[in-house]
Amino acid sequence: MSARTPVFVLAPDSFKGALDAPAVCAALADGLRRVWPAVEVRARPMADGGEGTLDTVLAASGERAQRRVCAVPGATGAIVHAAYGILATADGPTAVIEIATVVPITDATAMARDVATRDTRGIGVLIRGLLDGGIRRFMIGLGGSSTNDCGAGLLAELGLLITDADGVAVAPTPEGLADAARVDAAALDPRLRESAITLMSDVNNPLCGPLGATAVFGPQKGVRPEMVDVLDNRLARFATLAEQAVGRSAAQRPGAGAAGGLGFALQLIGAEARSGSAAVADLIGLDAALDGADWALTGEGRSDRQTLLAKAPYAVAQSARARGVPVTLVSGAVDPAALPALGEMFAGAFALAPGPMDLATSMARTAALLADRAEQIGRVVAAARG
Amino acid sequence: MSARTPVFVLAPDSFKGALDAPAVCAALADGLRRVWPAVEVRARPMADGGEGTLDTVLAASGERAQRRVCAVPGATGAIVHAAYGILATADGPTAVIEIATVVPITDATAMARDVATRDTRGIGVLIRGLLDGGIRRFMIGLGGSSTNDCGAGLLAELGLLITDADGVAVAPTPEGLADAARVDAAALDPRLRESAITLMSDVNNPLCGPLGATAVFGPQKGVRPEMVDVLDNRLARFATLAEQAVGRSAAQRPGAGAAGGLGFALQLIGAEARSGSAAVADLIGLDAALDGADWALTGEGRSDRQTLLAKAPYAVAQSARARGVPVTLVSGAVDPAALPALGEMFAGAFALAPGPMDLATSMARTAALLADRAEQIGRVVAAARG
Repeated sequence: MSARTPVFVLAPDSFKGALDAPAVCAALADGLRRVWPAVEVRARPMADGGEGTLDTVLAASGERAQRRVCAVPGATGAIVHAAYGILATADGPTAVIEIATVVPITDATAMARDVATRDTRGIGVLIRGLLDGGIRRFMIGLGGSSTNDCGAGLLAELGLLITDADGVAVAPTPEGLADAARVDAAALDPRLRESAITLMSDVNNPLCGPLGATAVFGPQKGVRPEMVDVLDNRLARFATLAEQAVGRSAAQRPGAGAAGGLGFALQLIGAEARSGSAAVADLIGLDAALDGADWALTGEGRSDRQTLLAKAPYAVAQSARARGVPVTLVSGAVDPAALPALGEMFAGAFALAPGPMDLATSMARTAALLADRAEQIGRVVAAARG
Repeated sequence: MSARTPVFVLAPDSFKGALDAPAVCAALADGLRRVWPAVEVRARPMADGGEGTLDTVLAASGERAQRRVCAVPGATGAIVHAAYGILATADGPTAVIEIATVVPITDATAMARDVATRDTRGIGVLIRGLLDGGIRRFMIGLGGSSTNDCGAGLLAELGLLITDADGVAVAPTPEGLADAARVDAAALDPRLRESAITLMSDVNNPLCGPLGATAVFGPQKGVRPEMVDVLDNRLARFATLAEQAVGRSAAQRPGAGAAGGLGFALQLIGAEARSGSAAVADLIGLDAALDGADWALTGEGRSDRQTLLAKAPYAVAQSARARGVPVTLVSGAVDPAALPALGEMFAGAFALAPGPMDLATSMARTAALLADRAEQIGRVVAAARG
C-alpha cells in the first residue's frame, strides 16, 4: 500500500537549553523509523551563526575541516582557549570563527565585571594570527557575545588607532571610548583589503538608536537602564569617527548592531553581512542534501514571527522550497499568532507538547517528544502518499 | 500543483468541559478552509452513548427524528423533564434515550442526597410509557448517571416484584435492596419480549467485583470507601435473585456494570449491549459519510489507552479504515504512553497545545487551537498529495 520509502532531510537548529541540533536530528530520525524502518535520513544539523555554529560546520565538513584552538584574551583580558575551524574550499582555506568561543555571554566571570570594561580584542588577535598564517577567507559567526564595545577592541588589534584629545591611546572598551577624540586608520592591517570576510548573523539591527545594539541587547549584557542612552551615544560618536577615518560607512547597515557592534566593526573593514542560517546552510551542503529528497523537517526551541526573518528554519524552508521539497516545522513551541505567516512557508508547524504541560517538563522530555511528533507527522505523510 | 480539493469527514466527540462536538467540527472546518478554501467537509459530530448522545443523534437525523420531552421521576423521585427522541427507521419507530437526561450525575440536588436512596425508576417509567405508545425499539445510551441501584428501579417499574422475607415490597434503591429476599418476575411487562433494546455504553465492566460498577464508578457518585464492599455484595445478591427469577444471567456480561448496574438490568430483560460509539456511528450514518472521502479527522478531550477500547475516535477509525480512508486524531491531550497503540490506528495523533500551556488556558482556547491544528495537518496532507 505504501509508496517508495521516502528520503527525509533533517535540518533543525538546536533547542536551546534542551537539546543540541545533532541530538534533535537523532530524535526525529527515531520517530520516522517507527513509520518507515528503512527510511533514508539525511541529517544536517543547523545553526544560525550563533552558539553551536562552529561545531555544526565542523561536523558537516568531515575531512575537509580541521578544528584548532588558540589562546587569546577573552572579554576581560583573561586568556581563553578558543576553538575555530579551518575548512579546505575551492577558493582556498577558510577560517570559521564563532565569536561566542572568545567572548561568550555564558562566561559568568566576565559577566560579573562591568560591561563597560569588556571588549573584543581577542577576536582581533585571533584574526591577526590567522592573517599571519596566510588565511584570507573568514566566516565569522556573531551572536552570544558578552561585549558591547562597537568592535573597538577588534579594530584596535587590527591597527586602528583610537586616541583622546591629547593623542594618547584609549582603551578600546565602552569605558575608554568615552575619551575617544580621534581615530586614525593609517595603520589598519593592509592584509584585510585582500581578505574576504563574511559575517554570519541572525539579527539585522543597526548599530545605534532604539533598535541598536545597546538598546536591544545591552540590558541582557548588564547595561543598566540609565546607561543605555549614554553608551548608545558614545558608540555613535566613535562609529562616526571610525567611518570618517576608514572612509566607509557601516553603522546603518543591517547587522551592524550584532554582537555589541562587532557587526559594525567587521563591516567597516569590508566584511559582507549574511544571514547566519543561510551561510551555515551553504557551509554544510544543505542544498545537496535536499536534492532528490521527499520531505524535510526543521525546528527550533520556539518559533514565532522572528523565525521568518533569518532563523535556521527559515533558511531551510527557502532551500527546500526552491527544490520543491515540502518542509515541516517541529518546534518546542509555536506562537499561534505567527501561524498564518508560518503556514505560507511550512507544510505544517507543530509544537512538542502532547497536551497541557509546563516548560520544564517539556524541556526535560524534548527528545522523546520530538520522536513522537516526527512519528505522527510521518504517519500523516505516509497515509497521504498512499 | 495541488491535487483535487479533498473531501474531509469530521467526526469528533465533544471535548468535555470545553466544546461540544458540533463546535469542534466547526473549528476543524475553519482550519481546513485556510488550506483549501473550497474543501468539502462532511461534519458528523460523534458521541459514545453518554452525555450528548441524544443531541448528536437528533442533529444528524433531520426530519427523520422527533425530539420529545416527558415528565418522569429523577434519581431522588423529584419530577424531571427528560428529553428523548423518536427516529423513523425501516424497522419502525425507534426511541433514543439518554439516561443522563433522567438521572444525571450533574444534578447537584440529587447528588446531595445519599447514593443509597437514588434509583432508576424514572427510566422504567419512560420505557413503560413508550411501550404504551407502541414503541418496541429502544436505543438506550448509558453513562453519566448518578445512580448505583443495579437498575432495580427500572426493573420494579417494569413489573419485577422485589420483596423482603415477609413478602413486603422493598424500595428499589441500594438501601431497600438490603432487605431484598425474594424476586418474582411473573408480572414483568410481557411487551419487553417483543422489543428490541440496544444498550449503548462505552464501558465493558461487569456488574460486581473489583472491576464492577460500585468499585469503579461508585466513589464518584458518593459511595464512601467503607461502603463499597457492602453495596457490591448487596448488588451481587440481588442480581442472583433477579437472574433466577427471570431465567437469564447478565451480571458477568460486558457492560453490566455501566450506569450503576443499569447495564445489568437492561441485559437481564433482553437488551443487547453495544459499543456506544459504534451504535452512534450507525445512527448518524457515519459509514455513508466516509464513502468516497479522502480523509477523516476525529478527536476527544483526552486520548489514552482507553481510546482504543470503545471511545468515539476508535469507532471512527474502525469505519474509516474499513473504507481505506486515513483518519487523524486531534485531541486536547494525547498520552505519550498510548502513542504506539494509537499509531497503529490513526494517521497521526496530535494534541492541541502550541507549546507549554496550562490546562485552563488550553480549554479556554480550544476552538482556536483546533482550527490551528487542523490547518497544520491539512498543510502536511496538501504537501504530500502534491
